[in-house]
Amino acid sequence: MMCAHVDNSIGFEFPMTTSDEVALSQYMRQVRHEVDELLANVATYGEGCPRVLEDAIRHILLAPGKRLRPMLVLMASDACGHRSNVSLASACAVEMIHTYSLIHDDLPAMDDDELRRGLPTVHVAYGEANAILAGDALLAQAFEVIARCDASPEKVVRCIRELTEAAGPCQLVGGQVDDLQAENSVGNVEQLQRIHERKTGAMFRVALRLGGIAAGGEDEQITRLDTYGRHLGLAFQIVDDLLDEQGDTEQLGKQTGKDTEHGKLTYPALMGVEGSRDLAADLIRQACQQLDIFGETAEPLRQLAYFVLERNN
Amino acid sequence: MMCAHVDNSIGFEFPMTTSDEVALSQYMRQVRHEVDELLANVATYGEGCPRVLEDAIRHILLAPGKRLRPMLVLMASDACGHRSNVSLASACAVEMIHTYSLIHDDLPAMDDDELRRGLPTVHVAYGEANAILAGDALLAQAFEVIARCDASPEKVVRCIRELTEAAGPCQLVGGQVDDLQAENSVGNVEQLQRIHERKTGAMFRVALRLGGIAAGGEDEQITRLDTYGRHLGLAFQIVDDLLDEQGDTEQLGKQTGKDTEHGKLTYPALMGVEGSRDLAADLIRQACQQLDIFGETAEPLRQLAYFVLERNN
Repeated sequence: MMCAHVDNSIGFEFPMTTSDEVALSQYMRQVRHEVDELLANVATYGEGCPRVLEDAIRHILLAPGKRLRPMLVLMASDACGHRSNVSLASACAVEMIHTYSLIHDDLPAMDDDELRRGLPTVHVAYGEANAILAGDALLAQAFEVIARCDASPEKVVRCIRELTEAAGPCQLVGGQVDDLQAENSVGNVEQLQRIHERKTGAMFRVALRLGGIAAGGEDEQITRLDTYGRHLGLAFQIVDDLLDEQGDTEQLGKQTGKDTEHGKLTYPALMGVEGSRDLAADLIRQACQQLDIFGETAEPLRQLAYFVLERNN
Repeated sequence: MMCAHVDNSIGFEFPMTTSDEVALSQYMRQVRHEVDELLANVATYGEGCPRVLEDAIRHILLAPGKRLRPMLVLMASDACGHRSNVSLASACAVEMIHTYSLIHDDLPAMDDDELRRGLPTVHVAYGEANAILAGDALLAQAFEVIARCDASPEKVVRCIRELTEAAGPCQLVGGQVDDLQAENSVGNVEQLQRIHERKTGAMFRVALRLGGIAAGGEDEQITRLDTYGRHLGLAFQIVDDLLDEQGDTEQLGKQTGKDTEHGKLTYPALMGVEGSRDLAADLIRQACQQLDIFGETAEPLRQLAYFVLERNN
């Protein structure tokens, strides 16, 4: 088996075999296709939805995203050996919530970003009011997608409980509030981790938990997936910080150098580039250890972990 | 029985007996108390929620509101003869969604209001970013309140389906988008009605439907409650327009004269003050006709309809 040493823009090197890469890339393409198809479907509105709202939602929701979070849902279901109706619905719901949070985070009152997924942000393209409302609509509709699932009501309710909590004031929203408050403040690594455990980590973790629940996974499996998600989310955020400092705006599809401009707490600022890289690599190793109990069915999750570390967009 | 001809700021006169008024006012006070207690409870956050976010949410959620929508949920359950766990949870969820929509509608990018429920709006008191995020948090948490209900999962899922749809792009959000777009445009009564059927009506209707569903009401009962809600919602909006033109800022707890200032379509502008009053009164009569099948248990809903017509805040 050929061993390709992947070298990317932020300088990680990890052994990934060529055939692994081909298999992961095929798997990811297929999952992306399924998710994109359902998203295009749910973002086709009937009577009552103003054209400008539909356009604003589709502009960002159907733009080429990594689809990392929905991929995690489906991979978690696969790891537990069964992909159900609820898996695909949860995958879409998670991506819709992620997208709503991007729309709102990009607003002038928050990060004031002009580029997202390689396109003008929603408020730049459709105005601020429509951007706020497009985010609101996606948030409400995310829960609707799961609630309309043809599946056992017990499972549906459990998934909605998990997702509402992850998207709520103590998790996703709370993390964003603290992230904004931390601008131009003197912070430490623990404080930064606390922010990202909620701002990024909560949605990673819930993606994996939903995948496990949708598959009818056992409690021990769901706990392991959750811990994998916690480590992966943090590693993702560290890489994100490194890319913001060192990456390329065109390749990333969003503005780089914004963190420094906004005086944000970042991992490279607090522990240096080398220290950040080492921490990310260590978190990925810890994430993958959680997958031991699954065997072969968790192979995509293992590979995705290294993909997250090696990503350049 | 004494008959008090109520004469209020917008000039309606309706016969309401003094004892009716006393009974309604006691009932409303009791319901308000129950709803306020649960809202204070759900807006007490543990670890993870930044203090400023909790404060921003409580500032508006616990401010003295009319609590009309949660009242409709509980009255609809009472009309069907049974108030359940899901009734109170739905009442709170509906009020949380209404409150989120007020926070976002008041933002500078939308209606740019500075006063709400007699207090500075959330963005004035806590900044724009925190206002957007407080609204987001309330929206997600509203569904969580129902999802955490100790009730049959079938009923819980049904309620969440109804509520996500009412809060989504084709109803509440779509109505607000069209309302903003209609500013300074030449419109007609049909167009205005189409806006308010979604912006105001959808939440009135779903409040009544949830009350009926929570009570285990029959389909015919839920349909009647829905139609009552549609007529009541429209009448409420007409009175709102009249109060905005003729009411008193201090009594209303929000700025008056804003509709004209923003070039908004309103009922008095399109059909005159007299015509608007007649239409509102007619809608209230139609609303009450829907209640015939319920008998005595719908008495609070009948009285509330006249209260809506006669309100001065």
